[in-house]
Amino acid sequence: MTDMEWIGLDWGTTNLRAYAIGAGGQVAEEASSGNGMGTLAPADFEPALLDLIEPWIAARCRDGTDAVPVFACGMVGARQGWCEVPYREVPCPPVAANEITRVPTRDKRIEMHILPGLSQRAPADVMRGEETQAAGFLLENPRYTGAICLPGTHSKWIAIDNGHISGFTTYMTGELFDVLSSHSILRHTVTSDEWDEHAFRQAVEEASAQPQRAVETLFGLRAAALVDNASPETCRSRLSGLLIGQELGLASRYWSDKPVALIGSSATVPLYAQALASRVISVETVDTRAATLAGLAVAAAKSGAASHG
Amino acid sequence: MTDMEWIGLDWGTTNLRAYAIGAGGQVAEEASSGNGMGTLAPADFEPALLDLIEPWIAARCRDGTDAVPVFACGMVGARQGWCEVPYREVPCPPVAANEITRVPTRDKRIEMHILPGLSQRAPADVMRGEETQAAGFLLENPRYTGAICLPGTHSKWIAIDNGHISGFTTYMTGELFDVLSSHSILRHTVTSDEWDEHAFRQAVEEASAQPQRAVETLFGLRAAALVDNASPETCRSRLSGLLIGQELGLASRYWSDKPVALIGSSATVPLYAQALASRVISVETVDTRAATLAGLAVAAAKSGAASHG
Repeated sequence: MTDMEWIGLDWGTTNLRAYAIGAGGQVAEEASSGNGMGTLAPADFEPALLDLIEPWIAARCRDGTDAVPVFACGMVGARQGWCEVPYREVPCPPVAANEITRVPTRDKRIEMHILPGLSQRAPADVMRGEETQAAGFLLENPRYTGAICLPGTHSKWIAIDNGHISGFTTYMTGELFDVLSSHSILRHTVTSDEWDEHAFRQAVEEASAQPQRAVETLFGLRAAALVDNASPETCRSRLSGLLIGQELGLASRYWSDKPVALIGSSATVPLYAQALASRVISVETVDTRAATLAGLAVAAAKSGAASHG
Repeated sequence: MTDMEWIGLDWGTTNLRAYAIGAGGQVAEEASSGNGMGTLAPADFEPALLDLIEPWIAARCRDGTDAVPVFACGMVGARQGWCEVPYREVPCPPVAANEITRVPTRDKRIEMHILPGLSQRAPADVMRGEETQAAGFLLENPRYTGAICLPGTHSKWIAIDNGHISGFTTYMTGELFDVLSSHSILRHTVTSDEWDEHAFRQAVEEASAQPQRAVETLFGLRAAALVDNASPETCRSRLSGLLIGQELGLASRYWSDKPVALIGSSATVPLYAQALASRVISVETVDTRAATLAGLAVAAAKSGAASHG
């Protein structure tokens, strides 16, 4: 581990993922834990990190080299995180060298940096972590103009203008699916792990053409189960399709007549790609891990910690 | 209690409300319990009812009169209720004498009837109980053409054409507010029992003019709390206003250029009335209890159980 140049952290609400980056920019080691921001008090962050990376820095520091730089993105910089790092306001490039916050540590073998999230004033919106993934995508596409979409619990649609973020919108699509299917009357109607691809696609089509259809027909899922004996897998797939279609329809100003980059690793990413394929200039899909690592490398390079990038 | 002609029941998911109706149509006695449909197995319904009305029928039956007719509306007729009563399909009048289901009882002192709910085929929708309240309103307004709205957990908008129900839509407005404010990330943002009337009104106005604004700006409530220090009461009132405004905007085909009758007793009813006032031909508000009693009286009269009605 003596050739480790820096450590990258993707530190979200539920997980901490750490990557030891070697001199060639390659991932030398990686490790993860469930010590997400959501479970930690401020004093717990440094121990939680050391738990994970101790073997890497122990090996390196026996050689007497300098402290290892660590770059972290995500909710670690939130108000409830290790240290609140103020948002940078859009429009702006996704990562800026002079706005990466150095956080003091008790352990002098590490030099901790947290990347700021981004905020938008009107309409009010925020992100923490997605800006780093956007930076990772833009590393290979520095003059990109188009949309970046990160589907998920809180889907982000980001407008990119010549490599800069000009605006973004968060849709609570994944969380709406979760709360409706777990806590609303629809929970009785969507009790299935099976999938009805046809019902999903039809619902995406309906709701993306007419986004208001989703809210209008939510209760209709229950009614369809009662009156038409619609199956739980049909209702579940249709609920998912209505909510994703609603997001796509509402976000059309982001993707209409533009290229779209989807960053994500979940099973929904191909569904987004499929739904958009015929309606946008181009769709490409980038893996979350690759985008995050590339974005952290941008931060490390801008800070002079990486030997190249 | 010897002049009791019939008993009316409003038997929903969470409560059972019983009314002893005298010869003049007046409420002689009333009682209620938490024995809603949601907590009862099929065999529990009759005992739960007798628990509540035993004193009334005991007094009456000492005189050796016939069994007392009981008319019930609501979820008592659902698949998980006392006895599943098939939906009647719209278009139809809200209550029809020949479609009230007689349910056998072990106790021969009562003659149990359950009013059917209504279904709509396309788009699929259902109601149980609201049709009885609509019938109660129409008793005084037999030729009514316009909208009836019952705001609530599952708000109903009902189109009435010359006293008949021509169609309806259910909006999960109240339940969306509940699941979002209790189970989503917004729960951190809406922790207040206070009310910001200005924020509420502004949100109703925004979302009723552009219903898609609600879904677009949900996450923005969290962002406004983080970035603009929006207070919990402002965010809570705004969440409520966005969802009610969304419902009003989507339901505009029901109320636009028409009279509207609001049936309800919750604190949200005046808010609906206020939001609609300047945009519809007329708005009147009818109390839930009065509408339900009048609707049950329609059923009793059609079945020959009531001496007038």
